Amino acid sequence: MTRVSRRRLLGTGALTAAGAVASAAAAPSAAARTAPLSAPLSAPLSADVVIVGGGLSGLTAARDLAAAGRSVIVLEARDRPGGRVYGLPLGDGTTSEGGAEFIGPTQDRIAALARDMGVETFKTYNEGKNVYYRNGKRSLYASDGLLGAVPPDWGVIDLELALLKLGAMVKEVPVGEPWKAAKAEEWDAGTFYTWSRSNSLSAGARFLMDAFASSTLSARSQEISLLYLLHYAASAGNESTPGTIDRLINTREGAQESRFVGGSQEVPVRLAAALGDIVRYNAPVRSIATGPGGVTVTADGVAVAAKRVVVAMSPAIAGKIDYSPGLPAARAQLMQRYPMGSIAKFVGVYDTPFWRADGLTGQAVADGGAIDATFDNSPPDGSRGILMGFMNQANIRRLDGASADEVRAAGLDSFTRLFGDKAADPRITAFQRWDNEMWSGGGPVGVAPPGALTAFGPALREPCGPIHWAGTETSDYWTGYMDGAVRSGERVAREVHAAL
Amino acid sequence: MTRVSRRRLLGTGALTAAGAVASAAAAPSAAARTAPLSAPLSAPLSADVVIVGGGLSGLTAARDLAAAGRSVIVLEARDRPGGRVYGLPLGDGTTSEGGAEFIGPTQDRIAALARDMGVETFKTYNEGKNVYYRNGKRSLYASDGLLGAVPPDWGVIDLELALLKLGAMVKEVPVGEPWKAAKAEEWDAGTFYTWSRSNSLSAGARFLMDAFASSTLSARSQEISLLYLLHYAASAGNESTPGTIDRLINTREGAQESRFVGGSQEVPVRLAAALGDIVRYNAPVRSIATGPGGVTVTADGVAVAAKRVVVAMSPAIAGKIDYSPGLPAARAQLMQRYPMGSIAKFVGVYDTPFWRADGLTGQAVADGGAIDATFDNSPPDGSRGILMGFMNQANIRRLDGASADEVRAAGLDSFTRLFGDKAADPRITAFQRWDNEMWSGGGPVGVAPPGALTAFGPALREPCGPIHWAGTETSDYWTGYMDGAVRSGERVAREVHAAL
Repeated sequence: MTRVSRRRLLGTGALTAAGAVASAAAAPSAAARTAPLSAPLSAPLSADVVIVGGGLSGLTAARDLAAAGRSVIVLEARDRPGGRVYGLPLGDGTTSEGGAEFIGPTQDRIAALARDMGVETFKTYNEGKNVYYRNGKRSLYASDGLLGAVPPDWGVIDLELALLKLGAMVKEVPVGEPWKAAKAEEWDAGTFYTWSRSNSLSAGARFLMDAFASSTLSARSQEISLLYLLHYAASAGNESTPGTIDRLINTREGAQESRFVGGSQEVPVRLAAALGDIVRYNAPVRSIATGPGGVTVTADGVAVAAKRVVVAMSPAIAGKIDYSPGLPAARAQLMQRYPMGSIAKFVGVYDTPFWRADGLTGQAVADGGAIDATFDNSPPDGSRGILMGFMNQANIRRLDGASADEVRAAGLDSFTRLFGDKAADPRITAFQRWDNEMWSGGGPVGVAPPGALTAFGPALREPCGPIHWAGTETSDYWTGYMDGAVRSGERVAREVHAAL
Repeated sequence: MTRVSRRRLLGTGALTAAGAVASAAAAPSAAARTAPLSAPLSAPLSADVVIVGGGLSGLTAARDLAAAGRSVIVLEARDRPGGRVYGLPLGDGTTSEGGAEFIGPTQDRIAALARDMGVETFKTYNEGKNVYYRNGKRSLYASDGLLGAVPPDWGVIDLELALLKLGAMVKEVPVGEPWKAAKAEEWDAGTFYTWSRSNSLSAGARFLMDAFASSTLSARSQEISLLYLLHYAASAGNESTPGTIDRLINTREGAQESRFVGGSQEVPVRLAAALGDIVRYNAPVRSIATGPGGVTVTADGVAVAAKRVVVAMSPAIAGKIDYSPGLPAARAQLMQRYPMGSIAKFVGVYDTPFWRADGLTGQAVADGGAIDATFDNSPPDGSRGILMGFMNQANIRRLDGASADEVRAAGLDSFTRLFGDKAADPRITAFQRWDNEMWSGGGPVGVAPPGALTAFGPALREPCGPIHWAGTETSDYWTGYMDGAVRSGERVAREVHAAL
């Protein structure tokens, strides 16, 4: 791991760079960099801002606020930074992406942060054909993306018509404010499942629309509001390029286009290292008390008094903190209505990426097994082959309570069906499930059931007194992605800086 | 308040009376009654069973387990027992029901408990006509219940046909296990809103179906799974009488048929008093740690070591506790997917129940104001008049941040529209909102969005090692009601007793 100098880091904070607070952005003072961390643990520390959560959103907010001269302390529950961005140890000293992994076009803010951290990207392996496995039948298709093109017998016209309708609706959703869409009430009244059944006839089209929900959100199409899905697609762009469904699901020119050399976790790991000892680990926050002078944030082993607090977590997990006084009703009830998806990743490490020689990308969509989508997770030089399989929603729930051997068997059963017998005996397997992981409670993102966005959506971002909200769920663009996390950190830093 | 003797209480525990554990049910030992409460606060207390939550479910479980000879400690966050059953102080030494209020036919277990506690019931005032107020027009109707009969111009045939269909579906839902219905997947795939729009044509029928969801569940029809609604109606009965929608919504022969003399809170207050010092107040539980020897439950100011723990709370609020090790995925994610409804009660106290003289029941269904349903909450002798108005979902959310004066003005504006100018100037008003209340997080009950019951429903009740789950949400019959809370307490006591 390369340690980036603090000077370099703090000099390139997005808040300063963007000029939003240019008048206030001064060279960081010594106090801003170090914060009063010399206080004993028994007495509360103090800072201008305390940030709850050391994922990409919290670390980005810390970087920008520190660069603007504010003193900051980050409290992180785990013993590592990154949150849902995690390098899964393979047991041989290397890691594979166990959480958020990819970067694609229009994801400008994570791209800028990675550049600042000196983390390079490379193209996701995408040469050859994809595997489609359904009802016991394996076939290959040439086109890119989950839904981009399917064999004629899957009802391709049916699917394309549905996607055209959906794409037209996506354009009518205001980015980051789906509750302001003219048809918001109508679209938030039912599920994507109901819509997909009313707007398709073929089993193949319906299967692929469910696969779209499952592989993009790790949620069943039954669980999500149609409006939420439209909002998610509308956010898959940037200020100059409207979001589209294609950009969500594609590898080439889509959200899965590229990966990070050394793994995505290098970005938060280097950023946290650059921030230094203002990031405190093993400090799960239990309570946030607001008083006349600001907030007192109490974590295991440490308390911090601050003027403002940023809660940089998903709504569902933010809801586990004890707030006093209680939060306004809209926010309190929103946190009960934004559940995390059900996701896991299973990884097999082979001597070579053997599927490439078979003319396969390593990408697959499947039913009937534990794994419903795969990618080639090999290192840039292809010096060994790593297959990664997503186990989403019902698939991972069927493995509740399964032993490590059972999980391995289920994962390899899927891999061999999709990629042949050569997949049966990897050197290493590894497994990361998020749905029972204590500090994330699921992934990749919080999803909105019907009725939530229209009634509670504005509470996603609206500050509650000195409590500000960040996390990828609050982002306008690329909500659910690393880019959205970084954007939310930049936005909340501007918000807090202006309020201080 | 009458204090019921502990001897009487413990001698009539339902677990013993039901004979379910007759072989083990002995006269309560001194240890069972007192538990080791003499230990200093700095050392953990110990008991066979610790119960988290002193609402009706937790108190009932404590009663039955103590009666069966188990030592029990109840930890309650508030300074009072009863949970969502609460006597709202009127400021003159009296109270009015601020939470759960009514009792009706087939609600046998709350009826038995009330009898044991010496709390009498009386009929909800129901003479005369109900008020219907919609689109600025006030009219009266003679029939009982929210949906039972509506003026012809509301599309009564349309509504009745929809209710017939719904009633037929209710019969196909296994009580307490809706996920086992033959059509569970289909019915859990969409919202009640979507179903109601597909199965009605008139605005009047649709309004009343939304009013049904709002007044029964304090949730929008958009928020709830069709399967959940069917499940809720299927539970509105008992072992010999199948649940029906009519029994949910009716006053006469329905869930609103009767009230408790002195207020519903007399039941938990007397039960808690009878249990004595095994109930500890101001003790919000923060963590439950499971180890080889059992559980350690840590609350503010007190810790209890026990063999088993009963979490007698709604899933959403149970999700705020820190569990170590983490809970199985199904349970962890269920707690993110069972949000509480948005409910408040507004009360006006008048010299007389003047609406009775006008030939009105005091019951109303309305739109366009802060209050969407009302009842006559006067004492049994009618010595003064109390109007109670429900402020549900969007209505109460519009009052987020409103001052007491603004709430009073909004409530009285509704009352006068519904009951005339005599309602404009009550002696007293009182207000209880639950959606920002810290320890319940909403009410009357947790509701399931689409996809939750089929994927996560069994986790409502399934124990996680030594952790058992109670609360009205877990009940087979009368889930969402006081009766369901008592039933869940009785069920969990049998479950824990058998496991010890």
